[in-house]
Amino acid sequence: MNFHGHQIIGKTTSAESGETFTGIDPRDGTVLPGEFHEATNAEIDQAVNLAAESFDTFRHTSLEDRAAFLEAIADEAIAFGDEFLIRASAETGHPLPRCTAERGRAVNQARLFAKMVREGSWVDARIDKALPDQQPVPRPDIRSMMKPIGPIAVFGASNFPIAISVLGSDTISAFAAGCPVIIKAHPAHPGTCEAAALIIQNAIKKCGLPDGIFSLVHGRSARVGTELVKHPKLAAAAFTGSLNGGRALFDVANARPVPIPFYAEMGSVNPIFVLPGALEERADGIAKGFIEALTTGVGQFCTNPGLVFGIGDNSGWDTFRSTAAELATEYDPQTMLHSGIHYAFEEGVKAMQNMGGLTLKARSIREPVEQKSEAACYLFETDSEGLLDHPQLFEEVFGPVSTMVECQSPRELEAFAEQLDGSLTASIHGTEEDLETYKNVITVLERKIGRLIFNGYPVGLDVCDSIHHGGPYPATCHSHFTSIGTRCINRFVRPVCYQNWPNAALPPELQDENPIGIMRMVNGERTRSV
Amino acid sequence: MNFHGHQIIGKTTSAESGETFTGIDPRDGTVLPGEFHEATNAEIDQAVNLAAESFDTFRHTSLEDRAAFLEAIADEAIAFGDEFLIRASAETGHPLPRCTAERGRAVNQARLFAKMVREGSWVDARIDKALPDQQPVPRPDIRSMMKPIGPIAVFGASNFPIAISVLGSDTISAFAAGCPVIIKAHPAHPGTCEAAALIIQNAIKKCGLPDGIFSLVHGRSARVGTELVKHPKLAAAAFTGSLNGGRALFDVANARPVPIPFYAEMGSVNPIFVLPGALEERADGIAKGFIEALTTGVGQFCTNPGLVFGIGDNSGWDTFRSTAAELATEYDPQTMLHSGIHYAFEEGVKAMQNMGGLTLKARSIREPVEQKSEAACYLFETDSEGLLDHPQLFEEVFGPVSTMVECQSPRELEAFAEQLDGSLTASIHGTEEDLETYKNVITVLERKIGRLIFNGYPVGLDVCDSIHHGGPYPATCHSHFTSIGTRCINRFVRPVCYQNWPNAALPPELQDENPIGIMRMVNGERTRSV
Repeated sequence: MNFHGHQIIGKTTSAESGETFTGIDPRDGTVLPGEFHEATNAEIDQAVNLAAESFDTFRHTSLEDRAAFLEAIADEAIAFGDEFLIRASAETGHPLPRCTAERGRAVNQARLFAKMVREGSWVDARIDKALPDQQPVPRPDIRSMMKPIGPIAVFGASNFPIAISVLGSDTISAFAAGCPVIIKAHPAHPGTCEAAALIIQNAIKKCGLPDGIFSLVHGRSARVGTELVKHPKLAAAAFTGSLNGGRALFDVANARPVPIPFYAEMGSVNPIFVLPGALEERADGIAKGFIEALTTGVGQFCTNPGLVFGIGDNSGWDTFRSTAAELATEYDPQTMLHSGIHYAFEEGVKAMQNMGGLTLKARSIREPVEQKSEAACYLFETDSEGLLDHPQLFEEVFGPVSTMVECQSPRELEAFAEQLDGSLTASIHGTEEDLETYKNVITVLERKIGRLIFNGYPVGLDVCDSIHHGGPYPATCHSHFTSIGTRCINRFVRPVCYQNWPNAALPPELQDENPIGIMRMVNGERTRSV
Repeated sequence: MNFHGHQIIGKTTSAESGETFTGIDPRDGTVLPGEFHEATNAEIDQAVNLAAESFDTFRHTSLEDRAAFLEAIADEAIAFGDEFLIRASAETGHPLPRCTAERGRAVNQARLFAKMVREGSWVDARIDKALPDQQPVPRPDIRSMMKPIGPIAVFGASNFPIAISVLGSDTISAFAAGCPVIIKAHPAHPGTCEAAALIIQNAIKKCGLPDGIFSLVHGRSARVGTELVKHPKLAAAAFTGSLNGGRALFDVANARPVPIPFYAEMGSVNPIFVLPGALEERADGIAKGFIEALTTGVGQFCTNPGLVFGIGDNSGWDTFRSTAAELATEYDPQTMLHSGIHYAFEEGVKAMQNMGGLTLKARSIREPVEQKSEAACYLFETDSEGLLDHPQLFEEVFGPVSTMVECQSPRELEAFAEQLDGSLTASIHGTEEDLETYKNVITVLERKIGRLIFNGYPVGLDVCDSIHHGGPYPATCHSHFTSIGTRCINRFVRPVCYQNWPNAALPPELQDENPIGIMRMVNGERTRSV
């Protein structure tokens, strides 16, 4: 396909700026077709204004219409064909099957949200009927439900060019809520973004929705994202990426005359705890699972495990370490997403190699090729003192590198759990008896972690109602919210309350007859009855 | 009762600083008994550390135990007797019956939250059972629910010394969630705060809970609040007060190395729209209701109506204006909460008197007594141009002052609705036909307003499940959340997700058997079944 490289502002395109950049294949540095224009401030302004203009129409669409729109996006993503995937593969170095799998996830996700939107109970409708005889003051009829908040800026992730980018859960949940979306295209996969934008435009046309509900702006400079977040008509932004980038935009969002929520998912260290019972039973298997998790997608997952804690007084721990080391050695270096990420990885590993008390336990035998932005797998090890000496080990290094930490007691594990920053996940390998012995560790983790995994690995989450992809800072900027799973619609809605409102003028979700048949809270009871 | 005026840090008290202040009766400037010590940074640190230490115990209490605790607070508030109310009256100038009513609201509120906590469905439990045959990847068992986030700082409001202060919904909802609370006592009613703290301590003792879950620090200086919000172990803060104070602390919360949510409810202009059908039917009655709402509590309600829009081409509008003017004239000036608020009110009114195009339509005949911090009722009027010339009229002046704005068309009303900032409420007086004719106005208001009232008045809300006391900035800092009503517990919880977790080690809310019988989402269906 051909890439025009322009901003997409509703149904029009615009390329005011002469400043352009290109997509690059990280596997060999090839410049990919298409010149992408940096968005000007005027173009950003146009996109957000158009989104704001379309908001009143879009938010008044029925739940059924919005569900159909999400399903149309899923259908169009399939119908668009493989060129989209080929471009995604070229821009990220992801093998094609991975891109196909990502599309599958994005499609299923859009359908899951469609199902939720259509069912309708997610609006959290509440009705308290009038109590004219209430003492000391009569109660009027009061009803409330969640309503969309307005135009949303979406900053996709470099590591999931399909499933956490233009077609990702930020876009899908904003649309599900009834909010227009302005995408800040990821500069590392601009062509993939343009293709995905066409998919969404096709769905908009098919459903007869206002074209202003979707725009996309390009930019490599921080200015583009900053201007977008500063725009007075923006209602919120969602971001997946680095701590530095996320925090900078979070600060911009909060410094506005009218602050807006900035929902950033910024990654985390995702510790694994390997407890003695499990080590005795299956040290080998856990080590295999660990290295697989560590190297999946060249270690470029938000949930990549950066620290592994084990109890040293256990022969299983030695088995675990040696199996993990062996597998790390065998890992064939792979191309990272782009040269910037590759450089940061190499710098991170270099810093670790220079830390006293930290030993390089294993490294891929094959030398990575720098021109291909290849990353080897690195496995370090240390003991409690080594970790205490280097608190920077609690920070994420993005890529296939992890540190095994040998502890001596439950208390030591508990102390390290206490030192962890907020994290998306923690994984505990153990027996049920271990869970009892180490329950203080779990108690601490429940304060710090978004998702606690028992005898499993953090990468490769299932998109469903119960999943949580969030957690205390720096995992995210607001731990109440998730960026994956159906709960993530909560980021883009707020309660609107109607007091003494005529039944016919109420939204259907709040009408006496409960025409959509949703679960509501009526006079304190959860019910689908009227 | 005697007031020690010390910081209350769990079960101990502390008065490190020699710097003290007193409560003052605004009705005559009398210095009230008790010297209250400014909290030192060390005392603040102690209080938050103690809260953090008690968190693990408190959050593991059962829903039943927490419900019983909230009911104990309600019972102790009654058992404490009237001295509490007498002090509140003396510190605020509120007549005693108002203080009694406030206690009633606080007590009912604690009981409402107890009911919600005990019922348990509020935890939003979600279960997606394992699908070992799912393609392309099997799904593990995934479950999640809301869990408390940690120590919460509460900044109560000056205008509700009982119902929105130490015993208010911020404290009650934090406790309901399982979060310890540190109160920053309001310096305008420090004695009332100390008495309310005793009530909570009595309930803690009665229920055998850790004393560290509740502390209270005093301070007139901004330092005390700032230090509290900056404390690394604080998880969130809730605030009700002025825009300046709220925004300053919001900025502190966001500038932390680890930012925390700062939930501020900062008041709003609460417009009233009087539509032609209603004006024809009952201009007189609406004017009476309006002036009553404007002067309730000496106009010191967050929901006080600061702007009234009417359609001039209507004899009912003249009736409305003259009746409102007559009633404003008759209003007997009353004592405001304290001299600072009184001064700000007088300054606000003075500024309005100097605005060209704005006419003083009416003022209380009786001259207010400055030594008693008395406020007269002021009613201004202007037309569209006057309002356009003075956008500051869209900002709140706290007290019994309002401006009637004469418009000429639905379009003009719509344009003004569009100019409004976020507001807690808007009230529409009209017929159902008016609602149809002016539906564009409603469409705009649904974007700006937290609670839309039909043929009613904003002051005096009912605390229930459906109420919403929030709205877009500057009404609050985060429009997803409310500070009143049971939804306000959402501010203090976050999802915690358990993957492949042994049933016995799960919290009861997520166990297979559904032992508490709560409503859950199981495999996408809302059900109380297992």
